[in-house]
Amino acid sequence: MSYKNFPMVPRVIFGRGSFNQLNEILAPKRLSINAPFIYLVDDVFKNNSWLTSRIQLSYDDKLIFVSSKEEPKTSQVDALVEEIILLTKERPSGVIGIGGGTLLDLAKAVSIMLTNNGESKDYQGWDLVKNEGVYHVGIPTISGTGAEVSRTTVLTGPDRKLGINSDFTPFDQVILDSELTKDVPTDQWFYTGMDCYIHCVESLTGTYLNAFSQSYGDMALELCKEVFLNGELPEVESQEKLMMASWHGGMSIVYSQVGVAHALSYGLSYLLGTKHGIGNCIVFDQLEEFYPEGVKLFKEMKAKHNIELPKGICADLIDEQFDIMIDISLSLEPLWENALGKNWEKTITREKLRELYQKM
Amino acid sequence: MSYKNFPMVPRVIFGRGSFNQLNEILAPKRLSINAPFIYLVDDVFKNNSWLTSRIQLSYDDKLIFVSSKEEPKTSQVDALVEEIILLTKERPSGVIGIGGGTLLDLAKAVSIMLTNNGESKDYQGWDLVKNEGVYHVGIPTISGTGAEVSRTTVLTGPDRKLGINSDFTPFDQVILDSELTKDVPTDQWFYTGMDCYIHCVESLTGTYLNAFSQSYGDMALELCKEVFLNGELPEVESQEKLMMASWHGGMSIVYSQVGVAHALSYGLSYLLGTKHGIGNCIVFDQLEEFYPEGVKLFKEMKAKHNIELPKGICADLIDEQFDIMIDISLSLEPLWENALGKNWEKTITREKLRELYQKM
Repeated sequence: MSYKNFPMVPRVIFGRGSFNQLNEILAPKRLSINAPFIYLVDDVFKNNSWLTSRIQLSYDDKLIFVSSKEEPKTSQVDALVEEIILLTKERPSGVIGIGGGTLLDLAKAVSIMLTNNGESKDYQGWDLVKNEGVYHVGIPTISGTGAEVSRTTVLTGPDRKLGINSDFTPFDQVILDSELTKDVPTDQWFYTGMDCYIHCVESLTGTYLNAFSQSYGDMALELCKEVFLNGELPEVESQEKLMMASWHGGMSIVYSQVGVAHALSYGLSYLLGTKHGIGNCIVFDQLEEFYPEGVKLFKEMKAKHNIELPKGICADLIDEQFDIMIDISLSLEPLWENALGKNWEKTITREKLRELYQKM
Repeated sequence: MSYKNFPMVPRVIFGRGSFNQLNEILAPKRLSINAPFIYLVDDVFKNNSWLTSRIQLSYDDKLIFVSSKEEPKTSQVDALVEEIILLTKERPSGVIGIGGGTLLDLAKAVSIMLTNNGESKDYQGWDLVKNEGVYHVGIPTISGTGAEVSRTTVLTGPDRKLGINSDFTPFDQVILDSELTKDVPTDQWFYTGMDCYIHCVESLTGTYLNAFSQSYGDMALELCKEVFLNGELPEVESQEKLMMASWHGGMSIVYSQVGVAHALSYGLSYLLGTKHGIGNCIVFDQLEEFYPEGVKLFKEMKAKHNIELPKGICADLIDEQFDIMIDISLSLEPLWENALGKNWEKTITREKLRELYQKM
């Protein structure tokens, strides 16, 4: 038996307003005046000087706004890397991702592709990365994905949606400043928060679970319930707790896996470009038979916050399109095995998946 | 406001039997054949080939058995460092601590003192360490202290009992193999486990608490209750959960502090050499007025496991001895402030402390 030797984020700072410490944290990491810091920032913060004025651009440092309207793509990573190489005289001192899961995953992937040859699609999979990436920092501005702590960066490539899982993927530094999440719109707050809730349910009910992952998953789930279900937490406390839920939820996956919801939502996202958070919600809403208690609570939370999920997103699809989603979904074997055990193929047939997708 | 940028253990492996992966983990860290690995192992494992046969000594690697009968001392660290320097041709490739809090703290301190001049007492305090220590690995064989994850190594020096708190203190690698805890005697298991329980109570009721530390503390406390109070967990599950409790309990202190129990028990330990785990229990048993609920549960757990604490350990002390303990205890200002707020000095007088010590 061989256990994963998990790389943890080696530096973390937590606190309301800790974003103000960014420049001080980066300063000693500057390799030379020709080796800039590259900031990848969600373009919702364009013209938001409350945030951007606190980013000190020195020498050749660049701030690049990136849209998170779509899921991150391998082609987008490759284009960003090319742009950065053209813009800079030397290999950057660091890449700083500021945003949600999309921006965090892009920052992780760009950091890796600045020091590894070829295209990012070549590294989708497990432990294919050869060289350490450049120093990279993650600063979440919405909570739930766990991307700030995970060992992967999930990208949609030409052939598949799959992570670059490697020891070089995790951030070197994370800044957890819950104040950055204060202006997230309610629906987005819910979808992204539910990403955490759903992967905790999947992890905690899965066959891969051990005491390490269970303790993190239990904690994250409790925090999600406090934020979304039980009650009327003061705003700041709610933001802080959801940020911790996301962090612990990400840690819960270390010795575990996600399950049915993620396996199906990857199909949606590959074919239809459905964003991860809302996609998980659309799928999970239909999974009573797999996660009866988890789905019941989910529906309560949805009702409590007046969330209306899109309906009929698969209504007009043709056979070939269902087949594409089903292929993607079935290819995610570890997720199915975690959810249903070694004999998952006995119950998860193409017909079964089609039937599920047709409900969405 | 400036928040601590906390250094986390960058690599962790969790699993029953993961100790078998030690040699494979160390191999790539060997700097040269003249730069050995130094294993500091609790001498309870002398002649225990189940454990020692799995440590592969190559080239000039040394295994040094160390007694954990007494709390670790600065003089002991300095003597170990001198011994290691005399034994080795080059600076060691790594120091591996195998044991409880005493061995883990010794390994951390030795690692630091191999690369920093002077005596270890000079580094007791906060951020006095100048140079990164040698690569160091922590392998707990008993659960509760949190030393495997903390940013300190608590040593008794000529003048005080105080930690070497620094960014270079945390381990570079931790191996969490609960099987190594299987032969711990019941009383020791209880005392060390209660170290975790007690510092969670202190952290969770303290004034320094934030959402980060609270989430870790809540989780650790829940796990302690599962292990010590609720019930009849299967042995392996109980060992695994207590190992995770210790880990999370250590993390809980990151943005928090311990409190009254630790402040008083440091005095006992300085004067009488009382070991940390049992010392905390002796003190905590008398702290109803500070931690009513925590002490109530503690007494239940003590009863459930038929633990008899030593009584009257301060019965024969003279005034000068009480004064020494009181001085040590009062010097730990952050602990008092965390426990009782900025005005702690109004209630914590020398008379009050003497009265408390006299009950023990």
